Amino acid sequence: MNQWMELADRVLAGAEVTDEEALSILHCPDEDILLLMHGAFHIRKHFYGKKVKLNMIMNAKSGLCPENCGYCSQSAISKAPIESYRMVNKETLLEGAKRAHDLNIGTYCIVASGRGPSNREVDQVVDAVQEIKETYGLKICACLGLLKPEQAKRLKDAGVDRYNHNLNTSQRNHSNITTSHTYDDRVNTVEIAKESGLSPCSGAIIGMKETKQDVIDIAKSLKALDADSIPVNFLHAIDGTPLEGVNELNPLYCLKVLALFRFINPSKEIRISGGREVNLRTLQPLGLYAANSIFVGDYLTTAGQEETEDHKMLSDLGFEVESVEEMKASLSAKS
Amino acid sequence: MNQWMELADRVLAGAEVTDEEALSILHCPDEDILLLMHGAFHIRKHFYGKKVKLNMIMNAKSGLCPENCGYCSQSAISKAPIESYRMVNKETLLEGAKRAHDLNIGTYCIVASGRGPSNREVDQVVDAVQEIKETYGLKICACLGLLKPEQAKRLKDAGVDRYNHNLNTSQRNHSNITTSHTYDDRVNTVEIAKESGLSPCSGAIIGMKETKQDVIDIAKSLKALDADSIPVNFLHAIDGTPLEGVNELNPLYCLKVLALFRFINPSKEIRISGGREVNLRTLQPLGLYAANSIFVGDYLTTAGQEETEDHKMLSDLGFEVESVEEMKASLSAKS
Repeated sequence: MNQWMELADRVLAGAEVTDEEALSILHCPDEDILLLMHGAFHIRKHFYGKKVKLNMIMNAKSGLCPENCGYCSQSAISKAPIESYRMVNKETLLEGAKRAHDLNIGTYCIVASGRGPSNREVDQVVDAVQEIKETYGLKICACLGLLKPEQAKRLKDAGVDRYNHNLNTSQRNHSNITTSHTYDDRVNTVEIAKESGLSPCSGAIIGMKETKQDVIDIAKSLKALDADSIPVNFLHAIDGTPLEGVNELNPLYCLKVLALFRFINPSKEIRISGGREVNLRTLQPLGLYAANSIFVGDYLTTAGQEETEDHKMLSDLGFEVESVEEMKASLSAKS
Repeated sequence: MNQWMELADRVLAGAEVTDEEALSILHCPDEDILLLMHGAFHIRKHFYGKKVKLNMIMNAKSGLCPENCGYCSQSAISKAPIESYRMVNKETLLEGAKRAHDLNIGTYCIVASGRGPSNREVDQVVDAVQEIKETYGLKICACLGLLKPEQAKRLKDAGVDRYNHNLNTSQRNHSNITTSHTYDDRVNTVEIAKESGLSPCSGAIIGMKETKQDVIDIAKSLKALDADSIPVNFLHAIDGTPLEGVNELNPLYCLKVLALFRFINPSKEIRISGGREVNLRTLQPLGLYAANSIFVGDYLTTAGQEETEDHKMLSDLGFEVESVEEMKASLSAKS
């Protein structure tokens, strides 16, 4: 049995991946990429079979952010020519939900820029969420920034299922990316969300000049955080941001990162997120042997490929979309 | 060691694939596709590393064919609205060669429809070939139909390197596809080419309602024929031909077929040919773990993807194009 299948079996039996094993995943020779992805698939298949979860982003508030995150086109220091607008109205949030539902997308992610939401912004989201739940029954994820406990409770009570706040990078590397808030600020928000009963969603951005050990650390931190859903972004460097021009990723390395996240977080929803198309390129399909989830449509300020291309990829692989009904069933099984 | 690596090692040690093993390749569970392709890659890598040979088709004469091949839009019974024209002039053949050379394509395939070439048509090809060889040094493959020994000799003496004449399908299935000439006619032409010193190129078209045993038989017949170059076409059913609407292939099965051809013909140039884009679709890159050659640009009467897409795929895989210089070196090593 090859080393990846052997490690996969041990992970399925409950073993944790050592840093050394994790490093060997990231250093997997390109010639063995198919074996590595087959090992990751062995784990992915155990928990999710060949199902793929579809998520859609509603960029509910754009720009106007006081933070200085180096990757983000919406930050206070970004000169990227993006659209800036306050929280969209309820109708727009509902339209987005309808579109997700019509496209058989199970999870609707309401994302708002900013350090953290004002109570008024929480009101707006809460108001729309109740109607979305009644009308479409979608799984709703809110991503509004640093959160206060009472705000988390209000979101939970309104029917929000999941709360996203990425750790983005390792604790070591965090201050190289952002100084306007701390790594612990981010961890706290995820903990606050968890304590309110919201399902924690927290992920990473790979390709921000971090070390391989940083990548391992972030994957393990997300495991320690027990994030249910882990979005793995690959830096899509945007002109006008501090990380402009950074381009250190290639498709094969991105596959190894996805495999690493699967080995370290065997049972979790691992989502190939921002930068999928521009970094995995023609090898996108291989990513789904490790990941079991994607965003359909556009990201916050960068475009995603046509939704039809995503479905072609899934059918070519012989994979199936997790339907809204199946998602609802798994949601109620958890609550 | 998994069964495919074990089989690959035995093949590399000189073993021949049994029909039972061949059938198990075509029946490989989709869940094990990465293991199968890794096994095929183990063989491909042994003979070709990560190099990919690029070929380009010049459709030198189109339509006007008296034969009744069911797959072909140029046949006497085809109602497909294709362009028909006699053998193009020397300038056009030279222009095509220049384009191939400029695109770093090593092999230039001069293809002419028809049962077999007239001596005048052979003259035209011979005339252009001498100049192409002197000017660009490309590897030249001629594909002119059923060939007479003296014609083969003239092509060889003029500098043609390779002669293509596909067997297309198994002996059993041949008459279901074509009745205007026989399977043996095709075998004879390849033998005639070989006897004249031309490198034999002969391949198949998969997806013409053949059985899996037929696919195995054709792969083994090409081995028996000792074809140096094996184009594997996947039926691109064309409206107006007898095989119109036939659509029995899917990307994963096409990968298994490519793996089968590699296991059965370990050392040969296996080219993903016609129908690559429409049948392998988003899994095209995986095909190159078994095959080591592709056509760049259009096929005879169907379009290929943009040449830039082919190069993106190769670079995403970490594979490299065999340069014209490398091709020349391998050519002279053979002669």
